[in-house]
Amino acid sequence: MNPPTAPWDDRGLLLGDGLFETLLWVDGQIRCLDAHLVRLAAGCRILGLPAPDLETAAQLCRAAPGEAGLESGRAAVRLTLTAGSGGRGLDRPAAPAIRLAARAAAAPPITAPADLILARTRRNEGSPAARLKTLSYLDNVLARGEALKAGADEAVMLNNRGELACAAAANLFWIADGALFTPALSCGVLNGVTRARVLAKAATLGVRTVVGVVRVEALERAEAAFLTNSLIGVRPVRRFEGATYAPHDLIARLAAEL
Amino acid sequence: MNPPTAPWDDRGLLLGDGLFETLLWVDGQIRCLDAHLVRLAAGCRILGLPAPDLETAAQLCRAAPGEAGLESGRAAVRLTLTAGSGGRGLDRPAAPAIRLAARAAAAPPITAPADLILARTRRNEGSPAARLKTLSYLDNVLARGEALKAGADEAVMLNNRGELACAAAANLFWIADGALFTPALSCGVLNGVTRARVLAKAATLGVRTVVGVVRVEALERAEAAFLTNSLIGVRPVRRFEGATYAPHDLIARLAAEL
Repeated sequence: MNPPTAPWDDRGLLLGDGLFETLLWVDGQIRCLDAHLVRLAAGCRILGLPAPDLETAAQLCRAAPGEAGLESGRAAVRLTLTAGSGGRGLDRPAAPAIRLAARAAAAPPITAPADLILARTRRNEGSPAARLKTLSYLDNVLARGEALKAGADEAVMLNNRGELACAAAANLFWIADGALFTPALSCGVLNGVTRARVLAKAATLGVRTVVGVVRVEALERAEAAFLTNSLIGVRPVRRFEGATYAPHDLIARLAAEL
Repeated sequence: MNPPTAPWDDRGLLLGDGLFETLLWVDGQIRCLDAHLVRLAAGCRILGLPAPDLETAAQLCRAAPGEAGLESGRAAVRLTLTAGSGGRGLDRPAAPAIRLAARAAAAPPITAPADLILARTRRNEGSPAARLKTLSYLDNVLARGEALKAGADEAVMLNNRGELACAAAANLFWIADGALFTPALSCGVLNGVTRARVLAKAATLGVRTVVGVVRVEALERAEAAFLTNSLIGVRPVRRFEGATYAPHDLIARLAAEL
């Protein structure tokens, strides 16, 4: 059902012109499928691409684990949407025919807290793409590469103004003065599905949340910090450059209740 | 010889992890082939990818026009290098096996001067990728889309500091006070093969050249302006937002002598 190959004239392959979603599949069920598909459709509007048929996209996602030989357990489903085939150059065809494919791979849970470094590679706050999961993800690949080279798990990315944004493949939260902090989307932050769920859950718990424009010193001085994405859920941070963080009740509670 | 398809686990397709070159082919000959291959190999070093075998890459480029049914005339050869197949997520395999493919398409010469607008989408001066022709080219696609929507041919991109960088698919030059200006690579400028040739040619002509960090007002006040890339060569600019430019002898001379 999912295609094994894409043609070399695909604009996703040639130009990174497209979007993706990473979904968590557990024992046959995809978590937060609707939220991911809604975000995908919103991303298409922002990029000027036609919206996908959401039922088709859902079917491709549901089929992917079986196609990968997975019957139970925990898997990551990656749904990719490209701008489809096109001619030479940057310009899209008058009526792009988008291309969809999903693939699954086993994704065991990650329980160890994360060690972070500060990436040299910056987020492009001046592009709408910085708030989307696009196929032009090389800056994220480079930032992650910096982390692995330094023996860390993930990289914290600043934007070009020096403001905190997010990690290479996760959103970033920290706790200070009894409040929960995360960078604003305007800083070039991916609009994460789990980020939104954490903010909503914190509100129901009566935790004060601050979504703001913040410099790196705020993270260095925090009491505790954590990363979020659809696969890791809530993952505590142990270390960021010279700073270390203790476990925190709020992080444990968010991790348990999401 | 060139493959028709790529697998869906290719990191170029999934993450924009790779590079490309656009080469001009005229009546069976590829122009500046060595310069393009040298730049491709340099880009691989910067991105941490293995260098391609340059003879293989050259053969793929030479084969592409024939595979597209082109026997003579003028064509664009697009050479694509991806980081190859990989597992789930951002991390590259320990030993990436890069994938190469070239495609050709007829590319008639463009003789009309260009009308430019100022793009809202910015260059990411904080990433090494901004100076390379990477497969993560969505910002360029978005900027070009802005130009077409406004009825223009190309978009001038600033970086996040508000400095002039380049056009969506071309480098930018202008003439003022008897000197030739172009933005510095540090502004997030693609290191264009034709850009380098123009700078070298201007030096042999005794023209003063300034490679600098410049704001948009400098372009608005220029006497004349032009775009460069391997396909268009030197293309005069007629209009940029509210500014209009007259033809200029130096532009005609550079166009003729390159």
